[in-house]
Amino acid sequence: MKTFMDEDFLLTNRFAERLYHAFAEPLPIIDYHCHIDPADIVQDRSYDSVTDLWLGGDHYKWRLLRANGVPEEELTYAIKDDPWLVFKHFAAALPRAAGNPIYHWSHLELKRYFGIDKPLSPETAEEIYARCNEKLKEASMSARGLIAQSNVKLICTTDDPIDSLDEHRRIDADPTCNVSVLPAFRPEKAMDIRDAGFADYARKLAEVSGVNIIDFPSFCEALDVRIEYFHAVGCRTADHSLDSAIYAESTPSERGAAVSDALNGKPVDAVAAEKFRTAVLLHLGRHYRALGWVMQIHFGVMRNNNARMYEKIGPNTGFDAMNGNGRPERLARFLDALERTGDLPKTVLYSLNPNDSEIIASIAPCFMTDGGIRGKIQLGAAWWFNDTKTGMEKQLTDCANNSLLGNFVGMLTDSRSFLSYVRHEYFRRILCNFIGTLMDNGEYPEDIDMAGGIVRDICYFNTLGFFNFDIEAKE
Amino acid sequence: MKTFMDEDFLLTNRFAERLYHAFAEPLPIIDYHCHIDPADIVQDRSYDSVTDLWLGGDHYKWRLLRANGVPEEELTYAIKDDPWLVFKHFAAALPRAAGNPIYHWSHLELKRYFGIDKPLSPETAEEIYARCNEKLKEASMSARGLIAQSNVKLICTTDDPIDSLDEHRRIDADPTCNVSVLPAFRPEKAMDIRDAGFADYARKLAEVSGVNIIDFPSFCEALDVRIEYFHAVGCRTADHSLDSAIYAESTPSERGAAVSDALNGKPVDAVAAEKFRTAVLLHLGRHYRALGWVMQIHFGVMRNNNARMYEKIGPNTGFDAMNGNGRPERLARFLDALERTGDLPKTVLYSLNPNDSEIIASIAPCFMTDGGIRGKIQLGAAWWFNDTKTGMEKQLTDCANNSLLGNFVGMLTDSRSFLSYVRHEYFRRILCNFIGTLMDNGEYPEDIDMAGGIVRDICYFNTLGFFNFDIEAKE
Amino acid sequence: MKTFMDEDFLLTNRFAERLYHAFAEPLPIIDYHCHIDPADIVQDRSYDSVTDLWLGGDHYKWRLLRANGVPEEELTYAIKDDPWLVFKHFAAALPRAAGNPIYHWSHLELKRYFGIDKPLSPETAEEIYARCNEKLKEASMSARGLIAQSNVKLICTTDDPIDSLDEHRRIDADPTCNVSVLPAFRPEKAMDIRDAGFADYARKLAEVSGVNIIDFPSFCEALDVRIEYFHAVGCRTADHSLDSAIYAESTPSERGAAVSDALNGKPVDAVAAEKFRTAVLLHLGRHYRALGWVMQIHFGVMRNNNARMYEKIGPNTGFDAMNGNGRPERLARFLDALERTGDLPKTVLYSLNPNDSEIIASIAPCFMTDGGIRGKIQLGAAWWFNDTKTGMEKQLTDCANNSLLGNFVGMLTDSRSFLSYVRHEYFRRILCNFIGTLMDNGEYPEDIDMAGGIVRDICYFNTLGFFNFDIEAKE
Repeated sequence: MKTFMDEDFLLTNRFAERLYHAFAEPLPIIDYHCHIDPADIVQDRSYDSVTDLWLGGDHYKWRLLRANGVPEEELTYAIKDDPWLVFKHFAAALPRAAGNPIYHWSHLELKRYFGIDKPLSPETAEEIYARCNEKLKEASMSARGLIAQSNVKLICTTDDPIDSLDEHRRIDADPTCNVSVLPAFRPEKAMDIRDAGFADYARKLAEVSGVNIIDFPSFCEALDVRIEYFHAVGCRTADHSLDSAIYAESTPSERGAAVSDALNGKPVDAVAAEKFRTAVLLHLGRHYRALGWVMQIHFGVMRNNNARMYEKIGPNTGFDAMNGNGRPERLARFLDALERTGDLPKTVLYSLNPNDSEIIASIAPCFMTDGGIRGKIQLGAAWWFNDTKTGMEKQLTDCANNSLLGNFVGMLTDSRSFLSYVRHEYFRRILCNFIGTLMDNGEYPEDIDMAGGIVRDICYFNTLGFFNFDIEAKE
Repeated sequence: MKTFMDEDFLLTNRFAERLYHAFAEPLPIIDYHCHIDPADIVQDRSYDSVTDLWLGGDHYKWRLLRANGVPEEELTYAIKDDPWLVFKHFAAALPRAAGNPIYHWSHLELKRYFGIDKPLSPETAEEIYARCNEKLKEASMSARGLIAQSNVKLICTTDDPIDSLDEHRRIDADPTCNVSVLPAFRPEKAMDIRDAGFADYARKLAEVSGVNIIDFPSFCEALDVRIEYFHAVGCRTADHSLDSAIYAESTPSERGAAVSDALNGKPVDAVAAEKFRTAVLLHLGRHYRALGWVMQIHFGVMRNNNARMYEKIGPNTGFDAMNGNGRPERLARFLDALERTGDLPKTVLYSLNPNDSEIIASIAPCFMTDGGIRGKIQLGAAWWFNDTKTGMEKQLTDCANNSLLGNFVGMLTDSRSFLSYVRHEYFRRILCNFIGTLMDNGEYPEDIDMAGGIVRDICYFNTLGFFNFDIEAKE
Repeated sequence: MKTFMDEDFLLTNRFAERLYHAFAEPLPIIDYHCHIDPADIVQDRSYDSVTDLWLGGDHYKWRLLRANGVPEEELTYAIKDDPWLVFKHFAAALPRAAGNPIYHWSHLELKRYFGIDKPLSPETAEEIYARCNEKLKEASMSARGLIAQSNVKLICTTDDPIDSLDEHRRIDADPTCNVSVLPAFRPEKAMDIRDAGFADYARKLAEVSGVNIIDFPSFCEALDVRIEYFHAVGCRTADHSLDSAIYAESTPSERGAAVSDALNGKPVDAVAAEKFRTAVLLHLGRHYRALGWVMQIHFGVMRNNNARMYEKIGPNTGFDAMNGNGRPERLARFLDALERTGDLPKTVLYSLNPNDSEIIASIAPCFMTDGGIRGKIQLGAAWWFNDTKTGMEKQLTDCANNSLLGNFVGMLTDSRSFLSYVRHEYFRRILCNFIGTLMDNGEYPEDIDMAGGIVRDICYFNTLGFFNFDIEAKE
C-alpha cells in the first residue's frame, strides 16, 4: 500500500524510485511543443485568482466540469466574474474523477506551486481557495516565476508563418529572462485551402513575405521566406495538425488550379485539397531537412464537434475528440515520397487516437536510413487525449516493442497554462517506473547506470540533440 | 496467492475488499438492458433440467461448445431431448476455457443459485448435474424466485414498437410480483428499410398506431404514437442496434422517396437507407429528449455471419462478431445534429468493438452542455463481447481517462437467462478492484467513504437518477 | 525482485514456474511456419562468424541498428566483409532496446547456444564476439546441430507452388537427419495478378504442372496439380499473405477476363484483382478442405515501404509495417462463402495489426460447426510485429476471452535463422505465466494437472493433431 501521491508516487519498486530521484528529477525541462502565449512571458504576467491561473485556459479541466453538469454560464463565462463559483464546481467534480490524470495533475499543481497537500473536495474547497489566492501574491507565482520554479530551460511556442515573432525577439534580447523561448512553425492556415479565410490568409502571407503569390510555386516561395525568418529567430521545429494522415500525388497543373481557385474564392473539393496539402507538406519537408529542423505531424483528431458551442466560444475550448479514421497507413507513402529523394527530415509522428500508435511505431523504422541520426523517425509522446497513466505506458510499450526506447525524445505539455509543467513530472515518474519495472522483473539488467543513462536521455539529452537546441547560449 | 473464486474473488487489496463487501454487495440490481421474456415472469416459469435453465438460451455458452467440436445435433437440437449429453459436453469444454468469463460466470451461477463450490469438469459433471436438477425442484428456483434471490428491483426488457406490452401491464398489476418490469423501445425493424419484411412491418405499425402511413412524416407519427404508449406503460429508455454508426443528411424528398419505394417493394440502396435511418433516429432522439428518456445506441457488430446456420436456427444463436468498420467518428456528427437545436437526449453509447471505446469516450464530453445532468452522454458498459475481466477494466479505464468515472451508470446483463445476474456481481467486483487499486497505489485518497460513495453511485444510484426510474412505487 | 533472465525468467508465481518447468520446457518443438532455407539443412551449413549466423538474415535486428543511426554500409553491406563492425554496432544499440523482445531473444540466444550469461554492451562486445566465434567451431553449431539442440521435431518451410521440393525429398530420404522438414504451400505469386511478373509466373506454373493455362479453370487446375504434389511430399498446410482481408464476388466471365488480361500483359484494376484473388483463395480452400490441410491466412501488413531501399536490397529486409486498413470484417464473408457449401477447411487467421486481433477472435467461433474438430477456426499466434511480451499476452487474452484457450495451436517462429527457436521458449514462458497467474489470482482452480494439460496441448499436442503431422514416422 502506498500513501496518496507521496514522493514515490507512481514508483512501484526500488529501481523505479532510484531512477526517478537520482536521474530524472534533477534534470531541467525542455518543453518543445506547447501553446502558451509568449506575451505573458514578456510581461511576466501575474494572477489575481487561482481560478484564472488554474482553470482559465485549461480546457481539459472544462470537460470534467461539463461532464458533472456545470452549465457554461457557471464555467467559462464566470471565470473572471465569479471565480469562487467556478472553483467550487471544480472541487465538487474532482473527487468523481478517480483514475483521471487531471486528478493527479491538479494535486501535483497544488503541491508543487501552492504547497498544498490536502485532496481537493467540497469540504476543503474554501480553505484551499483562500490559501492559493494568498500564495498568488508572491513574486514567484508570476509567469516567469513559475517557469523558473519548474526548472524549464527552453520552450517552443506555436506560431503561424505570418507571425512577427516580436515577443520571441524581445525575450531573447532580455537579459533578465532566463528561459529560451523559441517559435515553432505551424502553417495550419496555409494548408487549409478549403477554409473560407484562405484567400485572405494568402494575401497576408504575401505581404509579410514580400512574395507576390500568384500560383503554387510562389505560394511555396512565400512559405520558404517565412521559414528562413523563423530559423533566424531560433526556430528549430515545425508542427502540423491533420485530421487524418494525408498522401495524394498531383500534377503541377492540379496544384496550380487548386491555388488559383482558392485565391479567387472558388470551391476546392476534398480530393484537390488533399493533393494540395500533400504537395505543400512535401515542399516544407524538404526545406526542414535542409535546415536540420524536426518535422512534427499529428493527426487522428476531430475538432470543433459541437457547432453551437463553437459559435459561442470558438476553437480549443474542449469540444474536440479522437478521430477513428486517421488512416495512419498513408504516412508510409508520404514519408517514402521524401525519402526517395533523400529529403526526409527528422520526424516525430503522433496520433491522438491510440489505436494508431503501434502502426506508427512500426512505420518509423522503415525510414531510418540516415547514418548518424538516432531515432530519426519517432513515435511521439502520449499527449492530449493520451496524456494519462495508461496512455503513456502504452506509448512507451509501443515505442519499446518496435524501436529503441532509449532514443525517444520524451514529453511535451501541449498546454496553455504555466502550471502544466507537472505533466513532465508525471511522465518522468511513469517512465522511471516503466524501466524500473523491467529491471525488477528481471527483464533488463540490474545496472542502474545503464538504465539511468537511458532515463536521462529520454528526459532531456535526446531532445537537446535531436532538435539541435543551443541552450547554453541563453544561460 | 488467492483461493479459487472465494468471497474475495477478483479483489486484490484491502480497499477493494472493503469497497465490495461494505458498499457494492448489499445494493439491489437494476438491469436496464436485457432480453428476457416477460412472459416467463408472468407465468413464473420453472425448469425441469439445469441444461434448459443454464444452457437453453445462452448462446455465449454455445460458442464454447462449438469451439470444442460439439456438433449442433448434440447442442441446440439436444437441449430438450438429451439434456445430460449437452451438460456433459459443457463439462468437457469448460476446463479448456481458462481465462474466459464464462468460466467465472458458470461457477458463480453454480455457487449462488445451486450452492455448488466444485469446479465443473468431466469428473464432477455427473454429481453436479444431479445436484442441480434436485435443487430446481425448490420454489426459489422459478423465474420470480431467481429474480428475488438476486435482489433485482427493476428490469428493462427489449420490445418492438408494435408490441402490445400486455405482459408488462400484467406484471405491473400483479401485487405478488415484487420486481418492476419495464419495456425498452427498440425500433430495429422500423429502421431496417432494406429488409424484405419492412413493408409488412410498416403495415402492422400503421395498424397498432392508428396512423395511416403514406410518407416519411406519417411513418414518424406512427412511431411517436407508440413512444407515447410505451411511456404510459413505464418505458424510460430506447435501444438502437446499428452495424456501424450512421450519419447522412437528407432532403424531405429523399426521405419520402425511400419510404415510398420501401412500401411499394422497390429496392432502397445503401446510401438512401443510411439517410432514412439517420432521419428516423434524429426524429426519435427529439422525442426521447422531450420525454426525458435515455437513448442507448450500440454498434460495431456483424450479425448472422454464418448463413447456413442462420437458415437452420435463426438469429441470436451465437454467430455474431465484432465489426471492425464501426465508423465511430460518425457519432460526433449525429450527436451534433441534435445538439444544434437543443434536442439531444441523455445518451449511452456502446461499441461491441473495443477499439472504438476510447474514441466514444472522447466524443461524449463534447456534448455535455446541459447544466444539471451528470454524465449526460456516456460510454456505456462493457457487454457482450466485452463482458470480460479485461474488457471491463478497459471500459472503466477509458471512461475514467476521458470523463468522470463517478457518473457512470454501470452494468447491464444483455442476457436471455435468469441466472445472468451474476454478471452484475462480476462487474461490481471488477469495479471495486479498479477503484481499490487506485487507492492502494496512492493514486486516489485513502478515504473509504468518498470512494465508497462513487461505488454506490455506479452500482445503483446513478442508474436510478439517470433513467428517472420510480422504484419505490412498486415496493 | 527477480534476477536478470534467470531460469524463472517471465514466471511471476509458483504455478507459472511449475507449469513451465514440469510441463512446457521438456516438450519438443514443432515449428509449423518459418522461412529457413531447407538447403541449409541438406548441406548442414556451418558458420564462420557469429555476425553471419546471428545478424546475417535477421531483419528484425537490422531495424534496431538503423534506429540507432547505423548506415546501411556498416550493416547489411558489411556482414561478410566486416563482421566485427556490425557486431559492435549491435552491442551499442542493444542496451538502448529496453523492453524490446530482441533484447530478450538475443540474450536467450547467447545463453542457450553460446553459454554466455553476460549482458551484451559496448563493454562486453569484444569478449562475447570472441567467445561466440570460438564456439562456432563446434559441430553442434551447424544447422542440424542447432535444430537438434533445440529439440525441434518438425519444421514447415515456406514454398512456392512451382518449387521442386527437391531439398525436402532429400532430407526425407536422409536417415542421418532427425528432423521432419515439410513444405508449406504459399501461392503468393499465383495471386498477385497485378504484378509485372504474373504472366511469366503463370508460364512456369503451366510448365511444372503440365497444365495448359488458358483461362481461370485451367489456372486453378494447375494449382491443384501442385497441391497434390506438395501433399505427396508431406505438405499439410498452406500459407497466404494478404495486405488486407479480401472478399469480392465475381462471375465466371469476370474471372476469365482477369486471367486473360494478365496473361496478355494488359492491366488488371484493383477491383478485378480482388475478385480474382477471392476466387482463387476460395478454390484453394475447397481443395485444402478435401485434403485435411490447415489454411493459414495473415494480413494487416504493408510491405516494402521504403522504395529506395527496396531497389537496393530487395524485400524482407526490415522495411515492412503494420497496415491500419486490414478490413478484418471481410474475413467473415470469405469464411461464410466456404462454410455455405461445407467446404471450409481448418483455418488459422492472423493479422499483423493487433487492433484486428479481437475482431478475428470473435469471428472464429461463428464458423466452428464441424463436430469433432477442436478449435477449427483459430486466432493465430502473435508473431512478427506482435512477437513481444505484451503482444503475446494480448493474443492469449483475446483468444481466452473469445474462445477456448485450451485448443490454441501455439507458437511459430516465422524466422530465417536457426537461433530463433528461443522464440518458442519465450512464448512458453509467457503462456505458463498467463495460466499460472490465473491460478495465482484464484481465477482458475489450483489443479496443476488440469492446467498443465492445457499447457502441454498448446505447446505441442494441439499442433500435432490439428495439422495431422506424422512425427513418429521420421523418428
